[in-house]
Amino acid sequence: MTDMLTLKDAMAAAADKVETELDRLLAVHEAPEQQLIAAMRHGSLNGGKRFRPFLLLESAKLFSVSPSSALRAAAAIELVHCYSLIHDDLPAMDDDDLRRGLPTVHKQFDDATAILAGDALLTLAFEVLSHPDTHANARIRCDLVHALARASGGHGMVGGQMIDLRAQDQELDIHAITRLQRLKTGRLIEFSCRAGAILGNAQEKASEALRGYAQDLGLCFQIADDLLDVEGREAETGKAVGKDAGAGKATFVSIMGVERARDQARMLADQAVDHLAIFDEKADFLREVARFVVDRRS
Amino acid sequence: MTDMLTLKDAMAAAADKVETELDRLLAVHEAPEQQLIAAMRHGSLNGGKRFRPFLLLESAKLFSVSPSSALRAAAAIELVHCYSLIHDDLPAMDDDDLRRGLPTVHKQFDDATAILAGDALLTLAFEVLSHPDTHANARIRCDLVHALARASGGHGMVGGQMIDLRAQDQELDIHAITRLQRLKTGRLIEFSCRAGAILGNAQEKASEALRGYAQDLGLCFQIADDLLDVEGREAETGKAVGKDAGAGKATFVSIMGVERARDQARMLADQAVDHLAIFDEKADFLREVARFVVDRRS
Repeated sequence: MTDMLTLKDAMAAAADKVETELDRLLAVHEAPEQQLIAAMRHGSLNGGKRFRPFLLLESAKLFSVSPSSALRAAAAIELVHCYSLIHDDLPAMDDDDLRRGLPTVHKQFDDATAILAGDALLTLAFEVLSHPDTHANARIRCDLVHALARASGGHGMVGGQMIDLRAQDQELDIHAITRLQRLKTGRLIEFSCRAGAILGNAQEKASEALRGYAQDLGLCFQIADDLLDVEGREAETGKAVGKDAGAGKATFVSIMGVERARDQARMLADQAVDHLAIFDEKADFLREVARFVVDRRS
Repeated sequence: MTDMLTLKDAMAAAADKVETELDRLLAVHEAPEQQLIAAMRHGSLNGGKRFRPFLLLESAKLFSVSPSSALRAAAAIELVHCYSLIHDDLPAMDDDDLRRGLPTVHKQFDDATAILAGDALLTLAFEVLSHPDTHANARIRCDLVHALARASGGHGMVGGQMIDLRAQDQELDIHAITRLQRLKTGRLIEFSCRAGAILGNAQEKASEALRGYAQDLGLCFQIADDLLDVEGREAETGKAVGKDAGAGKATFVSIMGVERARDQARMLADQAVDHLAIFDEKADFLREVARFVVDRRS
């Protein structure tokens, strides 16, 4: 219980730092395009859990990366995550009116502004990573840019979103859903851990261990999300629940059932932790976060 | 006249090379997300003039950049241009059904696919630039990424699109329109020329000269576009004409009138050419292209 509190404190502290960094990167100034900046801020400065940044910051600690480098990379991954949510929420996509209890960007502004705000957040992520402030070594910055582009593009997150959109028309089996989720949510989670290794010039063995951890964690995260979708209560998650089931989309839970899905998530969390065996206590928060993902209620 | 033909031949040859490179970068393979790749191809492999890639390739020649490096950067700038068109054409934005005589991406597929295809093309541009194939020197790759992100993001092209969207509600004066266009179309044109200088490790003086050229050319290009919008015929441009005027948007032409706008465009073309005085005949196509922009009919 003490450990759990400590993890929560660490996550909250990391979220605060990321929020401050995003606020700095999205500085407001009088300009005709200020509605765009306002929409970018609305879509990103909303007190999210900053789960991916937390993974990145903790992974970076394993390799004694400078906190300012890690924080910039953490902000970049969150910018990409937020852009994907803004576009995902659009009427043409998931058509969501609320996110974390607030109007989504297109509800607060309009569809066009939401499209542009997403575009600009994505672009800003690459601007942040490629800037010398992120790391003095250009090869490292470039590797980060390349890894993030691979993880989030047509053969990564966006490819997963495409499959997900078409999932209503198709009967996806467990393999197809696993691939979908590996792309849609898994690749960014993998990047979050990999970025720490890139920034820290980690050796291959350590990178591989983190990759294995991230892959299991990503899948575990998604199954837990599906469970929340079925079991969660609207008040706790702040978004409509039962949505996927309502849309007739196959999910891990709809195929495996609640019990087996929960067992599977726990097994994946254990596997994820096993990958971290080569690291000392510096990896303890990463170990804990795997348990946290299974047991989270929002 | 011979010169003009030669420029046209050079532009056509460059467009062919860029088309082939884009085709290679957007390889099709059997995958559940193949509709995304199909939409990305539809939105980019459509026989465009490849004006920005041409500027990039010609600028790169001034500094004896390797053709393969220049071609990859040229493909990247075109990917960004194409993504911006796909998003711009959406019903929430300009709501265009046709582009170059073909259905726009959201007409051929659907809005969601068009949003994702644009996202993925933008992301691919950064993937291409950051890959070692683009240049052996990571500092140069990183500078390209950073310059492109600055040029195309919220304080560049996307910022310009935001202002443009709101221009219907506001009475923009000539200064506001100039700023709008500098952002919306100017910044990518500037990047096209700057990329040649970055790839070629150009000295400050040469970079500055190219920047001056690109800024004047960009404005000239936009005024010529406004003139086409008023004077062009649908058959020649392959898209609806008179659209901006119909929407009540202020343009260079609506404020200055056709005659003064044409004079201004010619003056800007002359100024652009003047900036190139420090270069030898290697810059001849860049000189010619400035005239071409003023006199183009589509």
